[in-house]
Amino acid sequence: MSENLADILIINGLVLTMNSREQKFDPGFVAIKDDRIISLGPMANLSSPDMSEKIIDVHGGIVMPGLINAHTHAAMTCFRGLADDLPLMTWLNEHIFPAEAGLDHDKVFYGALLACAEMILSGTTCFSDMYLFEDAVAIAAKKAGIRAVVGEVLYDFPSPNYGPIEKGFEYTEMLIEKWKDDPLVTIAVEPHSPYLCSPKLLIKASEIALDNRIPLIIHLSETESEVKQIQDRYGNTPVRHMADLGVLTSNLLACHCVVLTDEDMDLLGQFDVKVAHNPESNMKLASGVAPIPKLLEKGVCVSIGTDGCASNNNLDMFLEMDTAAKLHKVSTGDPTVMDAKTVLKMCTIDSARALGLSDSIGSLEPGKKADLIVIDTKKPHLTPMYHPESHLVYAARGSDVDSVIINGKIVMENRKILFMDIEKVMENVRNIADEIRMKIY
Amino acid sequence: MSENLADILIINGLVLTMNSREQKFDPGFVAIKDDRIISLGPMANLSSPDMSEKIIDVHGGIVMPGLINAHTHAAMTCFRGLADDLPLMTWLNEHIFPAEAGLDHDKVFYGALLACAEMILSGTTCFSDMYLFEDAVAIAAKKAGIRAVVGEVLYDFPSPNYGPIEKGFEYTEMLIEKWKDDPLVTIAVEPHSPYLCSPKLLIKASEIALDNRIPLIIHLSETESEVKQIQDRYGNTPVRHMADLGVLTSNLLACHCVVLTDEDMDLLGQFDVKVAHNPESNMKLASGVAPIPKLLEKGVCVSIGTDGCASNNNLDMFLEMDTAAKLHKVSTGDPTVMDAKTVLKMCTIDSARALGLSDSIGSLEPGKKADLIVIDTKKPHLTPMYHPESHLVYAARGSDVDSVIINGKIVMENRKILFMDIEKVMENVRNIADEIRMKIY
Repeated sequence: MSENLADILIINGLVLTMNSREQKFDPGFVAIKDDRIISLGPMANLSSPDMSEKIIDVHGGIVMPGLINAHTHAAMTCFRGLADDLPLMTWLNEHIFPAEAGLDHDKVFYGALLACAEMILSGTTCFSDMYLFEDAVAIAAKKAGIRAVVGEVLYDFPSPNYGPIEKGFEYTEMLIEKWKDDPLVTIAVEPHSPYLCSPKLLIKASEIALDNRIPLIIHLSETESEVKQIQDRYGNTPVRHMADLGVLTSNLLACHCVVLTDEDMDLLGQFDVKVAHNPESNMKLASGVAPIPKLLEKGVCVSIGTDGCASNNNLDMFLEMDTAAKLHKVSTGDPTVMDAKTVLKMCTIDSARALGLSDSIGSLEPGKKADLIVIDTKKPHLTPMYHPESHLVYAARGSDVDSVIINGKIVMENRKILFMDIEKVMENVRNIADEIRMKIY
Repeated sequence: MSENLADILIINGLVLTMNSREQKFDPGFVAIKDDRIISLGPMANLSSPDMSEKIIDVHGGIVMPGLINAHTHAAMTCFRGLADDLPLMTWLNEHIFPAEAGLDHDKVFYGALLACAEMILSGTTCFSDMYLFEDAVAIAAKKAGIRAVVGEVLYDFPSPNYGPIEKGFEYTEMLIEKWKDDPLVTIAVEPHSPYLCSPKLLIKASEIALDNRIPLIIHLSETESEVKQIQDRYGNTPVRHMADLGVLTSNLLACHCVVLTDEDMDLLGQFDVKVAHNPESNMKLASGVAPIPKLLEKGVCVSIGTDGCASNNNLDMFLEMDTAAKLHKVSTGDPTVMDAKTVLKMCTIDSARALGLSDSIGSLEPGKKADLIVIDTKKPHLTPMYHPESHLVYAARGSDVDSVIINGKIVMENRKILFMDIEKVMENVRNIADEIRMKIY
């Protein structure tokens, strides 16, 4: 059988496939050759595994698709905990913007590399990133061995990276060209938001995305004040405004979507727009509670992201799942909404769909890329175990992830990150923080 | 100097005292002799530490008072993830109550011992417990080396432990007598709630608590339906009902307090009642959001608890702090409420006050009991560090706790629990879960 010639054979797992039939194999195996899953199933179907290059016995641990962080700003690790508990405008104007003004390619590289380490250590195998100097983020992701969808943030005022917006489009085209055949990095077009981007910018960005068949990613309807601003300027909600411009399309990933009218929600459904939900950031900044159960009812594909470290303050998707499940229960008054299975789907197969990657990742299936994680369940806070999905959402933490495989490569084994000197990376980011401290305080 | 003769000397820590002056020593030391802190301060004040029995160099890690879980049901670890995402009554009647009917002293002992391990591993050094067979919980806490306030749950229907309520009072008096001089365990009187306890029961429980100068602990105003039931039965809110019975006193710890009128809040303030806030449980069961910022404004002492594992589903107080801080920001629309320092106080010195223990625990001060934890901050998700309080609330997880000292004894060192065979404890609870599965499904 083919699995006997695997490069990596994972055995004795509780395998959650997250495929459309919600199949589980307990105990089960997953066989990996090159960058792909070649077979998986119950242990009973595995004849003799002797010929495999490397065998990992997970002793009953959970084997599942890696989590997909659908919206973050990786390099903001540099500002983790710099300023909290402040009014939004004080936070932005007196802390975050001054700190960001000093960014450059190298700082973004080290901040992103630290984020990659943190994400791998907490079971994330793919992240979607919007920021400045995104080429540095792509390089960092490739070095760390993590999958990434990256896009340079575009807006109408001058960028510390590219300067005027025309150069922003050139930079984006450069990224698309440079990374087009990369096995880990894909590029997206990322206008910041309808309030920082003119209609012209939005239309051009959408055209580039459609021409290249890549995602268009934007912040949309994150706060009441943003919605008011767009209403005042264009006489429409941000979603209606985007619809009128013809940029609501099925390759659009709209991040946040906190403040939506019923018509907005219908439009998102009608155009098959994907949504990235960021519950912890929305809570911490007091932006509000996105109407996710309603969006799910309307059939909208909703993914989950952590947002940046300055407004969370970690990138642990396990904690984000827990918060997502609980927040909507209390905000709707209905303990049955956002059940564990739904939330797990949002962070795996639905996040893959949101990023246009569901043909290759998001579930464990033969032929798909081998992006998967192993969770050690033999711990007090995961004992006993009645339902694995419940533990993953309500009891586990990122630190329970034991091993991580991305694109067929082991990038973390027994909690040891393999492709970077993590001590050195932390040291570099501490130095960046020292500079920030001196400069703005 | 006295610290040189310490049994345990902790050096090179970022020492957060949580004392009334919010003192920090960085780098600092803490010296422990027998069960108490004998001195602490900046490293510069430490002459030669050579004479100390044991020296722990924490290399810049945070040293702080252990977290105090103000409300839990430890043995419910046995039901962790047994049933989630269900309407409250289905959850209780079809899952939790049938499972609880099979409990006995031994099952509660093993469930509680597992909870003690989980709590120690996540930096909790004291917990307040309400359940059945509480003598077993006290024995488990003592074995694990964790401080505990325990009380047998009292109500008007027959208990699987003590039978009729008269026997419940006898059992409580037995606990008070048995544990009166224990260095770790103290007893509380714990009527379940105004809806399961007659006025007579509440009055008698309060008398026993006052006579013995110990806490009276109760579930109060957890849900709308409970408030309605009390309104229908007595024509008053649960808080007003308790006030009229004369059982609102400064030794009362009221757990949950989700559904409160302004008058209720004034009464809690006026009688110096303490509150235990359980945000994750209230969210998961869709009970609502307790008006904690308002209670704090009125000067009420609010502590934080995880509630039991069946409605959370872990006992990690770091995650509870994060949720508490964020939940109230989004629910009030104000990002400045429940700042990191406030939340940390709630889980240390204010939880100690809530349990009547603030003379001995809750802050690091000479003469107080040595209950403290060491957090390893040299990790990607805790890098860089601008403000330790921010990291503790918004970025850390229980798994970042490295060492735990309770009552002057090291109970966990380098994440290894010292006073129990944790593999054996997990095995015992897995066997209990197998029994539950067979019996009720």
